[in-house]
Amino acid sequence: MRLELVTIGTELLLGFTVDTNAAWIGRTLAEHGISVVRRATVPDDPAAIRDAVRDGLERTGFVLTTGGLGPTRDDITKAAVAALFGRRVVFDESVWADLVDRYARMGRPLSDANRSQAGVPEGATVLPNPRGTAPGLWITGDSGTVAMVPGVPREMRGLLQAEVIPRLTASAGDDVIRSVTLRTAGIPESNLAVDLGDAESAIAPVTLAYLPDVTGVDLRLTSWNAPRAVADQQLQAAATLIRARAGKHVYGEGDADLAAVVLDRLRRRGYRLAVAESCTGGLLGGRLTGVPGSSTVFVGGTIAYANQAKIDQLGVSEADLASHGAVSEAIALQMAAGAARNFAADMAVGVTGIAGPDGGTADKPVGTIWLGFQSPDGRWAERVVFPGNRTEIRARAIQFALYRLLQILPE
Amino acid sequence: MRLELVTIGTELLLGFTVDTNAAWIGRTLAEHGISVVRRATVPDDPAAIRDAVRDGLERTGFVLTTGGLGPTRDDITKAAVAALFGRRVVFDESVWADLVDRYARMGRPLSDANRSQAGVPEGATVLPNPRGTAPGLWITGDSGTVAMVPGVPREMRGLLQAEVIPRLTASAGDDVIRSVTLRTAGIPESNLAVDLGDAESAIAPVTLAYLPDVTGVDLRLTSWNAPRAVADQQLQAAATLIRARAGKHVYGEGDADLAAVVLDRLRRRGYRLAVAESCTGGLLGGRLTGVPGSSTVFVGGTIAYANQAKIDQLGVSEADLASHGAVSEAIALQMAAGAARNFAADMAVGVTGIAGPDGGTADKPVGTIWLGFQSPDGRWAERVVFPGNRTEIRARAIQFALYRLLQILPE
Repeated sequence: MRLELVTIGTELLLGFTVDTNAAWIGRTLAEHGISVVRRATVPDDPAAIRDAVRDGLERTGFVLTTGGLGPTRDDITKAAVAALFGRRVVFDESVWADLVDRYARMGRPLSDANRSQAGVPEGATVLPNPRGTAPGLWITGDSGTVAMVPGVPREMRGLLQAEVIPRLTASAGDDVIRSVTLRTAGIPESNLAVDLGDAESAIAPVTLAYLPDVTGVDLRLTSWNAPRAVADQQLQAAATLIRARAGKHVYGEGDADLAAVVLDRLRRRGYRLAVAESCTGGLLGGRLTGVPGSSTVFVGGTIAYANQAKIDQLGVSEADLASHGAVSEAIALQMAAGAARNFAADMAVGVTGIAGPDGGTADKPVGTIWLGFQSPDGRWAERVVFPGNRTEIRARAIQFALYRLLQILPE
Repeated sequence: MRLELVTIGTELLLGFTVDTNAAWIGRTLAEHGISVVRRATVPDDPAAIRDAVRDGLERTGFVLTTGGLGPTRDDITKAAVAALFGRRVVFDESVWADLVDRYARMGRPLSDANRSQAGVPEGATVLPNPRGTAPGLWITGDSGTVAMVPGVPREMRGLLQAEVIPRLTASAGDDVIRSVTLRTAGIPESNLAVDLGDAESAIAPVTLAYLPDVTGVDLRLTSWNAPRAVADQQLQAAATLIRARAGKHVYGEGDADLAAVVLDRLRRRGYRLAVAESCTGGLLGGRLTGVPGSSTVFVGGTIAYANQAKIDQLGVSEADLASHGAVSEAIALQMAAGAARNFAADMAVGVTGIAGPDGGTADKPVGTIWLGFQSPDGRWAERVVFPGNRTEIRARAIQFALYRLLQILPE
């Protein structure tokens, strides 16, 4: 099953809006065995919409449009497609009744301008849109089929999943494109490639893509154009092989959050965690508390940005600060110890470093981070130099700290 | 000056990559008076590339392509466009010399496979790309002009700015599309619209767009198709009018960061700031320390996620916790006072609330935040209920806290 996508909106062409819909649609349809073979983006202009839809129908017989529906866009897409199919737009009592009902529930007045929203091209199927006021439309003629959905992401997604994809898969083949993503941390892309060795040929026809990011390297495994059951089996075998080679760095699949994994392991051991943050300024605590339910494990932390705060709030030695500097093994360890003491925590992490853009020296360049750890099994510190700008260095430091916690907390 | 954009890449259609290039190009060209009137995205397939470029040339006489250049893409775009223009691809000694030089500097070996990179369609102009190995190309024939640049964002941007835009503006008209964005905080979109009154008609032909976000509502003012000097004048007048009506909510223009503005004002007064965070878990500190140079103003903070941490680390009253609950005026005030005391700060903010998804009650629904403030001029607390999910509620709470600080620190 092949189709073309036409995304409609002057704002898209002007770059005021990034077309994230298009990527979501491509990915989601591929998982259902439907290929978007071409995409056109046109302005809110009837002739441009008509031409793009016509060209797409000529090539593939099926066009999906997003945008240009609803009152603020004058239902321009509906009118252009109806004209292309030579159909009149007629007032639909049932769509109007839904609108009246919906506006009443929102306590908003309906005006005559809204009546255009109840217009439906003759012979078109109305696709209910419970998330918004403009329904989707499905129209078939001699030149093929056009499915129209609004451009509002939430509404578009809902309509695709509930209405469009089920209709498409009825005519789609069995072959799908499916992906599994394994998330890794604590290892650069180049080292990961060494660990994986000849994995790429071993997992063929499944392909492997490295997706490096400040939080680590995601490994995307993709099975191309195989029946669903075969694809799932291929992906599972490939994932098993990758995990066997990069296992200790893999912390989850899909959109797994390393912070959630770490909190889970702490929870199972009955450990409570505290942090002491200098250069990360609270972001490690922020990351941990971003996980719902973290309060059963994460107790709190001290943001000790100024040196005096490290002394007063974490009991860091003034002499050590003077002799070793704030970014040092001694201070990272003392910060962790201070946090564990302050919050009566079993485990604690101290983070101190130079996030830049200024403050680096030959000895301690920008990106230098000392991490101190304290656990019931002992304490240790680690120096890492991270690349990137201030934001990236801080994000990498946090992810690395979480990764180290993961390592010392086996499943 | 009108052109069409063709973005090339199977990954774009599959949705593995979001086409952020396209938005950047649309915005940047518009600022130079060049309109992208249509965009097509096609796979790494010679026939699809050729057809899309041909169609675009027929409509506008100028096509810009991104992607499908360089060794990993087999220089597919170069070959397809050369074929469309009926030109041979010939080996270019000077491009080859640049490549040899570049690989030598990187200490990487050049193979015969790289020789294809030195191929240039007859009659094409080579656009130097100091950021990568594949140069851009500019080719003109009977059907019009095609400019080709790589898809790597950094390389694409560099080539557009240094090579493509100067050539385009030579033939572009004087009229440009320009925007100014005013950033607001502390007011919902609907209230802002009331404050602005008839601004939209008063600033015409400049248009006004509301761009709401968890950090506030950005107001984008756009001047359409006017000479640059006129556009600048129109935008300045419009911005002045908007500021007169929404002034106290406007904290900056463009990509201004509210945290940076607040830190600046504190610095000018010689005030030092500390925070005490419960539901935001360190994100307010993280936000403040994201601003380079914040260390001269921001001293530190206490992340008191557990109640015991509030008592031990911030001196919050156990009795008040029991009688009012952790999310209350008394606790927010005591948290701020504790932070000010702990860090010897002039100003302090305490944040306690229910970020969800669980923990809400009829009295204190999810989204309820109490903010406590302590300043040399006194102390006060404020209750706000924010909409959204956990991430959004926390981001809104932080932005609101910063906005309140802004208000009590006049310029």
